[in-house]
Amino acid sequence: MSTSTQIATAIVGVTGYEGISLAHVLAYHPYLRVTEVTARSAQGQTLAQALPHTIPSPLAALAISADVREAQLVFLAVPHGVAASLATRYRAEGRKVVDISADFRLKDPALYARWYQHEHPAPAFLSEAVYGLPELHRDDIRKTSLVANPGCFPTTSILALAPAFRHHLIQPDAIVDAKTGVSGAGRSPSRRAHFVETSDSTTAYGVAGHRHLPEIEEELREVAHNARSVSKQRGDQGSDPVITFIPHLIPMNRGLLATCYATLRDGVTEDDVNAAYHTAYDHEPFVQILDRPPETGWVRGSNQCFIHVAAQPDRHRLIVISAIDNLMKGGAGQAVQNANLMFDLPEESGLMQEGGWP
Amino acid sequence: MSTSTQIATAIVGVTGYEGISLAHVLAYHPYLRVTEVTARSAQGQTLAQALPHTIPSPLAALAISADVREAQLVFLAVPHGVAASLATRYRAEGRKVVDISADFRLKDPALYARWYQHEHPAPAFLSEAVYGLPELHRDDIRKTSLVANPGCFPTTSILALAPAFRHHLIQPDAIVDAKTGVSGAGRSPSRRAHFVETSDSTTAYGVAGHRHLPEIEEELREVAHNARSVSKQRGDQGSDPVITFIPHLIPMNRGLLATCYATLRDGVTEDDVNAAYHTAYDHEPFVQILDRPPETGWVRGSNQCFIHVAAQPDRHRLIVISAIDNLMKGGAGQAVQNANLMFDLPEESGLMQEGGWP
Amino acid sequence: MSTSTQIATAIVGVTGYEGISLAHVLAYHPYLRVTEVTARSAQGQTLAQALPHTIPSPLAALAISADVREAQLVFLAVPHGVAASLATRYRAEGRKVVDISADFRLKDPALYARWYQHEHPAPAFLSEAVYGLPELHRDDIRKTSLVANPGCFPTTSILALAPAFRHHLIQPDAIVDAKTGVSGAGRSPSRRAHFVETSDSTTAYGVAGHRHLPEIEEELREVAHNARSVSKQRGDQGSDPVITFIPHLIPMNRGLLATCYATLRDGVTEDDVNAAYHTAYDHEPFVQILDRPPETGWVRGSNQCFIHVAAQPDRHRLIVISAIDNLMKGGAGQAVQNANLMFDLPEESGLMQEGGWP
Amino acid sequence: MSTSTQIATAIVGVTGYEGISLAHVLAYHPYLRVTEVTARSAQGQTLAQALPHTIPSPLAALAISADVREAQLVFLAVPHGVAASLATRYRAEGRKVVDISADFRLKDPALYARWYQHEHPAPAFLSEAVYGLPELHRDDIRKTSLVANPGCFPTTSILALAPAFRHHLIQPDAIVDAKTGVSGAGRSPSRRAHFVETSDSTTAYGVAGHRHLPEIEEELREVAHNARSVSKQRGDQGSDPVITFIPHLIPMNRGLLATCYATLRDGVTEDDVNAAYHTAYDHEPFVQILDRPPETGWVRGSNQCFIHVAAQPDRHRLIVISAIDNLMKGGAGQAVQNANLMFDLPEESGLMQEGGWP
Repeated sequence: MSTSTQIATAIVGVTGYEGISLAHVLAYHPYLRVTEVTARSAQGQTLAQALPHTIPSPLAALAISADVREAQLVFLAVPHGVAASLATRYRAEGRKVVDISADFRLKDPALYARWYQHEHPAPAFLSEAVYGLPELHRDDIRKTSLVANPGCFPTTSILALAPAFRHHLIQPDAIVDAKTGVSGAGRSPSRRAHFVETSDSTTAYGVAGHRHLPEIEEELREVAHNARSVSKQRGDQGSDPVITFIPHLIPMNRGLLATCYATLRDGVTEDDVNAAYHTAYDHEPFVQILDRPPETGWVRGSNQCFIHVAAQPDRHRLIVISAIDNLMKGGAGQAVQNANLMFDLPEESGLMQEGGWP
Repeated sequence: MSTSTQIATAIVGVTGYEGISLAHVLAYHPYLRVTEVTARSAQGQTLAQALPHTIPSPLAALAISADVREAQLVFLAVPHGVAASLATRYRAEGRKVVDISADFRLKDPALYARWYQHEHPAPAFLSEAVYGLPELHRDDIRKTSLVANPGCFPTTSILALAPAFRHHLIQPDAIVDAKTGVSGAGRSPSRRAHFVETSDSTTAYGVAGHRHLPEIEEELREVAHNARSVSKQRGDQGSDPVITFIPHLIPMNRGLLATCYATLRDGVTEDDVNAAYHTAYDHEPFVQILDRPPETGWVRGSNQCFIHVAAQPDRHRLIVISAIDNLMKGGAGQAVQNANLMFDLPEESGLMQEGGWP
Repeated sequence: MSTSTQIATAIVGVTGYEGISLAHVLAYHPYLRVTEVTARSAQGQTLAQALPHTIPSPLAALAISADVREAQLVFLAVPHGVAASLATRYRAEGRKVVDISADFRLKDPALYARWYQHEHPAPAFLSEAVYGLPELHRDDIRKTSLVANPGCFPTTSILALAPAFRHHLIQPDAIVDAKTGVSGAGRSPSRRAHFVETSDSTTAYGVAGHRHLPEIEEELREVAHNARSVSKQRGDQGSDPVITFIPHLIPMNRGLLATCYATLRDGVTEDDVNAAYHTAYDHEPFVQILDRPPETGWVRGSNQCFIHVAAQPDRHRLIVISAIDNLMKGGAGQAVQNANLMFDLPEESGLMQEGGWP
Repeated sequence: MSTSTQIATAIVGVTGYEGISLAHVLAYHPYLRVTEVTARSAQGQTLAQALPHTIPSPLAALAISADVREAQLVFLAVPHGVAASLATRYRAEGRKVVDISADFRLKDPALYARWYQHEHPAPAFLSEAVYGLPELHRDDIRKTSLVANPGCFPTTSILALAPAFRHHLIQPDAIVDAKTGVSGAGRSPSRRAHFVETSDSTTAYGVAGHRHLPEIEEELREVAHNARSVSKQRGDQGSDPVITFIPHLIPMNRGLLATCYATLRDGVTEDDVNAAYHTAYDHEPFVQILDRPPETGWVRGSNQCFIHVAAQPDRHRLIVISAIDNLMKGGAGQAVQNANLMFDLPEESGLMQEGGWP
């Protein structure tokens, strides 16, 4: 596609945190031109009236409408369940769709039904949907018209652990201890999101099982399986990755830190580990390997994933720490990255701003 | 009353922030023994189940019930409107009542109806109710069975400005710029109380008029009026205080700071000002005059009001800064102080803990 | 100047919060090209090494150097005292200078000596320096080579009150109750900036007098004086504005809210007030009049000043609430705005990004 | 000892966060009477002058002195290195000592030298010192005159994992992912503790090795060793626990959460796990097993350790989450608990207050 083309783009659900972030990222995007924004609430208002922080934005005067009419590209920033039924309609109308909800992430509708407590609303579209983690599925994303944008926890967890599984460096059992800001809970008021309940405190949640776990395991199993198919030189059959995943709520607006713990296989050296991660990410525009543990504040507002790798072969221990902004690489930013790929635009378009630190 | 007596006490609405704070203050109170706690939600649970932080408290095993049966003293920590109807019943049953809601604060039911948007539910009790600011109405509180516990903003504003009006030091127009923590918004989820909406930001609200304004003006007018009746030596008739009151929401759990600005009358000296404030508060157990501006963190969890007075006679300017914990001197703590007075107990009983800083 | 020109630009003091913010704003500036960055610490490191959040920035690979060599434009983001001596040298070398410190803000060196506790280091340059508030001094800024970038408190206070003084709507006495985030205290560790001392608390400071007060008064007096010279139709001579200014420290990173209180003159109507503010700001790119009180979060990372005006003629009260990001319109952003004017570039260049909310 | 006795008590280092917390806990302690407080800074001031939040405390009028004269019991709340030399002197003077620093925690002076980068200042006293974790060493604490108060991370980590190691339920490798509030960094200003660097962000630190690691491993190895000596019925020799410990800095004042991950041995059931933890803690006054993950806010200001245990035998996974207040059970509170034991007082004396939530 010629990059002089402007793609008419819609944001569905613009008043939630992901929708707000999409409007922020797309305000000055060189190729994706937001022509329509929708929201159940605030229809008829301009974006600036509903969200005064957008006043200086070129999108500020857009009126919030009820539905999409002309867009070639639709970003769905609405709850799961709702997203799937909209996606099927928009696909039928010939639009390309990036769905930020969880509806098309799991390939198995039975797994979806178990974790989301209702039947999948559009199982026929599951085969079309591509899991939108460009670092794993770039080529497939380029070819599809329906992207399932990954969850924030899966994005940072998979980016942290995939190289180790791909290169067969670690045992199947791995642990992801994740820390998230409160915007991950969405904009609807809740006790969990209440300032006084959350401020000056921290806690684990979802200990019995969190919906992002099957998504993490599905992707990492595919990585490990592909690795085993290609190369069996280490002589063991291997078994599927089994992830223990515990999220924690941190009194901060945005940001997600995953501290991942795995057991190095016998004989794996620090050099092996470093080689695996640098091979994976040295050419990636949105993943950086740092020589120190990242602070989530460093990626606030940027689409970067910062990763620090610490191998302790004497203790057979691998520690990988990854940081993203849950609304950017863990949401709206990655959604735009996927759209860039779907429309054959430069992948970095509109996404190379540094974090707004401090 | 003999101080060996134990007063059977109920907390109505124990799962809100004021109710929680009452349970905290009363856990080791020497005379008031909590025998009943109620809440619309969580009935049948123990306090420890509903509120795990209470586990080490002597009250932890209390079952949350639907209503009050035996208590001689009832603290009402429920929304306005609800409080008044409960208060009338409990009074009819012969119990003494401290109402933390706004229902009995304004003496004029028409004023109540205007600010609270509904008719007063029990106007017949307005004459019985005493405004529970001990520093102004200690003797009346001792004699009543129904105390209207002051609002958090009025408490800190009135304590800051009353000495200046009483001693006729300032012009009628005064400004209260108040800063409050989020717990003042209550425990029900709301967009205002959402962590992400409130954190790392600040704003004014209620600019067009806040319900605590008539309460502040009513009390300060009474102070000024009494002062004029007693002493007219400065030769002017004076006029009623007119307060501009703007609250601001601060990203902190609890704490309330009022920065008050007034215009010194001609000839008033720094000594006049200091004398007025020291006369008012040197013998008060819960008001302290500090030589530096107070931090709200210093009174977090304590029943103290810390006041700093800065007179600038060359600019005719008086600045008074007062700090309280909105859940203590601005709520539950003051409620217990009032109950101590109502039962002729030592006023400081159970209330002399310092703040839990940091 | 042709806008195809690229101006070689230096940031002096790039590792402080103002320097960091300059690097952020200038990363994608169309005309100002950062070619040099300096800092006492971290010399020899790249920007990305010293400040990892800059990794995706086009400036990330710049080496931090000790001094400026080639830049035509120098931003000084260093402490007062240091700034003045650097400014004189850079001016002697023919470079244009925007000084973010306080060194050239006050026109009277005696006033400077009193408030900053040392003799002015370069009094000869005071006459050349222009106070860089474009909304008041746009034409002079275009012509100068040395801009004194206003303080954060003065920027928001003056923008809030200037229309009222210019149109003779208020009495001379006015009050500015300001609330600032902690980044205003600078990046050097201090007890004031310690997380535990500042979090979950708020306090006033500088009650006896803050260095930004003379700056606010100097500018507002000039505004009032010019207004009186031009038009005396209201028949009174007027007197100089006298400002009471009390800053408060808020537990937030960035953001500044000024709640300003003034007394309306007799006969001034709400329409008079609205006309004054709309006349002043309807054509300003960086000042917006809002119909509701602004939240500082709305301008986080943007160069906007959001203003809400509430006139209460029945009480003779004017309330003006203004919000800025202290590191943007209150610092680095305004500095770039000034530089745009100094080099005859479009004033909005590089500055129209909306805030990074939430 | 008769509990009517009052023990003259000194707090050495009263202006640091541990010292402040000691003064808070001891204000109303029934047996330990604070007669002396010291600090390098603020000598001659009263406690109330140096720390205004103490104004209502019975200790507020105490003058801060340079040294201890009469106390029978000394709490050392000073940095490591300094503490050891003071401890030897106070012991020589016949006083009992609770040292909150790290100086007497590690039994091996070589280990101390390696982790603290200097020779141990008083190796002769290492054999006298008892590691002050009452849940493990209650009898020894009763008999000693020198207690090494545990670190905050070791307290919560050891309490979380000891029952599992004692009952031989888990493999030797275990992971402690800890989240701490900023007060753990001490009161001295630092970049790490700077509000702006820490707020709205989170990060791991000490990845290469943290000083609390050897302390955790030393105690857990002793637990595992004792278990193996007593009972070898499971038929394996076992090996020493090896802990991976990564602390994280959370933007909160106080509070410490440890999320611990271990691998269940074959055949271990959920009942085995529950039995081990209930056996260990059902009779402990300061450890509570909760049926849900604890929030650190629940123990803010209390001496409790709240523990949640989740066994997943199908995945061979044990997750134990423990929460303390780092200044209470992780510092000053536990120090008082130890002192109660050393003087044969009721262990709970002065320590049964619930947390000051919210």
